[in-house]
Amino acid sequence: MIGNKIHELCKKLYPINRSITGDGVRETLRILKGILPNLSIIEVPTGTQVFDWVVPMEWCARDAYIKTPTGRKICDFKINNLHLVGYSTPVHKKITLEELQNHLYSLPDQPSAIPYITSYYKERWGFCISQNERDLLEIGEYEVFIDSDLFQGNLTYGELFIKGKSDKEIFISTYICHPSMANNELSGPAVTTHIANWISNNKNRNFSYRIVFIPETIGSITYLSKNLNHLKSHVIAGFNVTCIGDNRDYSYLPSRNGSTISDAVAKHCLKHICPTFKSYSWADRGSDERQYCAPGIDLPIASIMRTKYGQYEEYHTSLDDLINVVTPAGLDGGYTVLMKAIEAIENNSYPKVTVLGEPQLGKRGLYPTLSTKNSGAAVRLMMNLITWSDGTKSLLEIAEACNAPIWEFYPILENLIQHNLIEIFNQPT
Amino acid sequence: MIGNKIHELCKKLYPINRSITGDGVRETLRILKGILPNLSIIEVPTGTQVFDWVVPMEWCARDAYIKTPTGRKICDFKINNLHLVGYSTPVHKKITLEELQNHLYSLPDQPSAIPYITSYYKERWGFCISQNERDLLEIGEYEVFIDSDLFQGNLTYGELFIKGKSDKEIFISTYICHPSMANNELSGPAVTTHIANWISNNKNRNFSYRIVFIPETIGSITYLSKNLNHLKSHVIAGFNVTCIGDNRDYSYLPSRNGSTISDAVAKHCLKHICPTFKSYSWADRGSDERQYCAPGIDLPIASIMRTKYGQYEEYHTSLDDLINVVTPAGLDGGYTVLMKAIEAIENNSYPKVTVLGEPQLGKRGLYPTLSTKNSGAAVRLMMNLITWSDGTKSLLEIAEACNAPIWEFYPILENLIQHNLIEIFNQPT
Amino acid sequence: MIGNKIHELCKKLYPINRSITGDGVRETLRILKGILPNLSIIEVPTGTQVFDWVVPMEWCARDAYIKTPTGRKICDFKINNLHLVGYSTPVHKKITLEELQNHLYSLPDQPSAIPYITSYYKERWGFCISQNERDLLEIGEYEVFIDSDLFQGNLTYGELFIKGKSDKEIFISTYICHPSMANNELSGPAVTTHIANWISNNKNRNFSYRIVFIPETIGSITYLSKNLNHLKSHVIAGFNVTCIGDNRDYSYLPSRNGSTISDAVAKHCLKHICPTFKSYSWADRGSDERQYCAPGIDLPIASIMRTKYGQYEEYHTSLDDLINVVTPAGLDGGYTVLMKAIEAIENNSYPKVTVLGEPQLGKRGLYPTLSTKNSGAAVRLMMNLITWSDGTKSLLEIAEACNAPIWEFYPILENLIQHNLIEIFNQPT
Repeated sequence: MIGNKIHELCKKLYPINRSITGDGVRETLRILKGILPNLSIIEVPTGTQVFDWVVPMEWCARDAYIKTPTGRKICDFKINNLHLVGYSTPVHKKITLEELQNHLYSLPDQPSAIPYITSYYKERWGFCISQNERDLLEIGEYEVFIDSDLFQGNLTYGELFIKGKSDKEIFISTYICHPSMANNELSGPAVTTHIANWISNNKNRNFSYRIVFIPETIGSITYLSKNLNHLKSHVIAGFNVTCIGDNRDYSYLPSRNGSTISDAVAKHCLKHICPTFKSYSWADRGSDERQYCAPGIDLPIASIMRTKYGQYEEYHTSLDDLINVVTPAGLDGGYTVLMKAIEAIENNSYPKVTVLGEPQLGKRGLYPTLSTKNSGAAVRLMMNLITWSDGTKSLLEIAEACNAPIWEFYPILENLIQHNLIEIFNQPT
Repeated sequence: MIGNKIHELCKKLYPINRSITGDGVRETLRILKGILPNLSIIEVPTGTQVFDWVVPMEWCARDAYIKTPTGRKICDFKINNLHLVGYSTPVHKKITLEELQNHLYSLPDQPSAIPYITSYYKERWGFCISQNERDLLEIGEYEVFIDSDLFQGNLTYGELFIKGKSDKEIFISTYICHPSMANNELSGPAVTTHIANWISNNKNRNFSYRIVFIPETIGSITYLSKNLNHLKSHVIAGFNVTCIGDNRDYSYLPSRNGSTISDAVAKHCLKHICPTFKSYSWADRGSDERQYCAPGIDLPIASIMRTKYGQYEEYHTSLDDLINVVTPAGLDGGYTVLMKAIEAIENNSYPKVTVLGEPQLGKRGLYPTLSTKNSGAAVRLMMNLITWSDGTKSLLEIAEACNAPIWEFYPILENLIQHNLIEIFNQPT
Repeated sequence: MIGNKIHELCKKLYPINRSITGDGVRETLRILKGILPNLSIIEVPTGTQVFDWVVPMEWCARDAYIKTPTGRKICDFKINNLHLVGYSTPVHKKITLEELQNHLYSLPDQPSAIPYITSYYKERWGFCISQNERDLLEIGEYEVFIDSDLFQGNLTYGELFIKGKSDKEIFISTYICHPSMANNELSGPAVTTHIANWISNNKNRNFSYRIVFIPETIGSITYLSKNLNHLKSHVIAGFNVTCIGDNRDYSYLPSRNGSTISDAVAKHCLKHICPTFKSYSWADRGSDERQYCAPGIDLPIASIMRTKYGQYEEYHTSLDDLINVVTPAGLDGGYTVLMKAIEAIENNSYPKVTVLGEPQLGKRGLYPTLSTKNSGAAVRLMMNLITWSDGTKSLLEIAEACNAPIWEFYPILENLIQHNLIEIFNQPT
């Protein structure tokens, strides 16, 4: 089960302190490059104008903790990087509990969880703490220490291009900007890395693939602002990969357009793998599809997920881990749907039968020779493929018309092509 | 509450003996002109050919009653004008009860109600009486007296034009041809008069408005036959206003086309004001939409009502009054939906975001600076407006996509325009 | 009731040993020609290439039986032609019971039924026998005797052309290739013959009719291969007629396209005659629509049936008889729907009202002159016809919009045409 390998990769990436910039992103990309040697790593300088945004200062955090009046170290960044509010400015001083409380973040409803908090665009410092621990803080003087820097640096991302027969591209995006959380986010880059591996090994691929590992929001905006024209003229389908590692739900979130080929294959594959999958609407968006599908950008990007961000209680807390939330089986399921979706795009030709009327299957050994009350059922799927192969319907549309998974047709189609009964075309004829 | 003012106007109009022609219509228009000084009053002579019809003789009724064998006056027109069948020819003679019965109209199922009966296109005379009273009539000789005239006169209607920035018009029609009945009909002209007043006071109106007070059927046919070319080239939306004063249901009846902008705003506003509103079909039509939407005329006219004509038991009887049926609260509700529908047409621009990708709302003070588990919800409506503002969707379509009332977007849109994040267009771009 | 006459015709055709070729087909066509004197009979030689197929050898069976060890004759072809597997090659020899079993066909689940089995495209011999009789066979030596021939002959079919005002054609196909079975198949040619008779007697028909009596599959393929260009340029609607004689369900099976005029009228007529009719999908196809609607052929052919082939337990067995399965009432119902469907196509003009606004029906005596609370209901259907007669909707679309059977509009439309209120057109205006 490939889920185990993906889970191993998640574990390796888990401890790194990622943010939207900084060495955590670079270290993550270095590990992925170990698996994907052709991965390019791109640096974009602080201050670069990217659409309506500006690439922010780079952030570096080396250490952070609080010392209680009795000298106990709490909120230790080296123990759990979630303790430090992302992009916290440096601080070192003694303050009262009252003052400290203004810089603490906890979740009363999830008292054992450390929340995940960031402040990218307003300078602040702060600590995240479980409500249980916070409730125990006694009155007195606290030492707060954050050894961090905000400086003119770079935003870093990774990009992998895999050439196929056609220069039309399938675009896959995943993000690497969250510290130690499993489903949101490590399931995304870990599954994507192994999908990239599988694509590279498929020598018959029709399409080219462009796969990016970026910080969420500012990263996709940055990437788009540098590559928009190319993407608009080449990308024919794609997916944003996130929250794809738990073993609870399967989920789909559409592109803004809602009826791109990415949407069609996502729904088709999910329906046949897990008929009870959850179908969200564009109103439920929350990840980089917000940029990829923004007005004027409008790339055909849909999302295939396991349990969607915001829809599981461990989301954006220290409870989103590799034990209770993300599992090898969960990753395996997510990988499989994504793989089948890509495979469906690769195989989505327009078949056209080469003869008028039904072909005589019997003389080709494709049909029982004795007509009985039940012989029809056995060849029904083949007959359905033939009857819909009029050159105007894609294989996906045919599979939908037959209410059968597209992958059941691959061997049948191959057989009929071998018998010269069907030709396939890239577009409707 | 404007409902009170509208109710007062209904009361003032209630006693007048209106019919499709005659001084009742003129007196009604004179009272409305007191509120709408620019109202024009137009007279169309008897005998004028109007499409397939001819403007009928004008009718004038001065007095009418029956004297019983014991000399008691019943069915006294001066007490309730519904007692006289509309367009009754003059008569003065003594007849038996048996003969009289042929000229009496009552409702066995509603024994206390005087029915409303007319005979515009066949000369007749008759009286309407409650079943209770009819049952008491004794055998003997009755004196019937109707002092009326049918003569070469005019059909009268009122027309108000309110100029806006554009010469494209919103057309509003209501009818003034029924004697003393409240929901059908006085709620119509009374609400329309106050809507006209509100429109006049809105100095920023984009569209021009054409508002007519006409007799039903023959009046709308007459009006159309004189103004069809102008209407077809100018009217972009409109409503037929009737039965808009009770406080029971809210109702919608479509244009024949069914998907004009009038239909879309009517359904949208009703849905968000009263989700349980009744949606009728074109098969349920019964008022002037029959003419405005006839083949070859095809104006975009829908109906917003409270309880539809024919759907409440007091309809077309003396029970349709200003106490039990039409109320200030009922009129207020009807006025509000109609006003919101017109406002929606006025505001139905095509917004387009000015930046690529999501705008950075934080730097403009439009977004919380601290990213937490829940901060997304607060700005969701603004983000949804932005994401759909691609220049191809009208504000109404965006409101539908967001499942929120269009009026919630007016201040948000204004704010985003102020921040140069959205431009608006009159048509899809 | 015409059902009785059709049932008589079924009885006459019942005993004949039909197959996809041979004298059984010819004798059947000779009987039909007695009713339809203009029926042409066409012979297509063995070996003719027809699309992907070849016209097979002609088969002639004169006698067939098995003699048991005790000399009893069983499976006697002269008693029931279903006993002989269709296209059995000749044989005459003595064999053991064990060897015989390889050539016997029975239905364990329907032990009293003789199944219907054929082997057109692989040379075999065999007998069909009830499971009950088979279970009684004792060990010993059996004489098997089949006096048959497979030879260079012809495939035979019948074709009837009935000229109408237009050279556009309605195409009706039914098949004549099954031996003694009633619903599948004799209901088909028997109903079709009487429909052809009815069409011939309708001197006002607008369309021409082409009606074929063919062997299923190979016959329709043969017919299409000879006539495809003509059919594609002339046929505007049509039906495949099969399983139309039982008195159980009504059924509809679509064309592959699914939205031809044939589909629309079939569904409309069935809905108004039997609202609970069964609606199948193209995935349920099984008769000659497979050829008529194949990719590249795409004729507008739908199926109106009583109980669909394969959906009743007597199907393809000796139990499919003229007593328990096919009845006069069943045939009558099938005939009626098919007739109404054809009538609907004949009457499916585009009506257009000649006046603007509603016509004044009163002056033409088409409307009550006294307006009362209920007078509207009586003329509602006429008013609905008028309101939808805008020249863009066919009468069928109007009937659908009014949710009333199209045939209720024929006399109303005729009346309105007489009053010059409506004109009709062949296409949208």
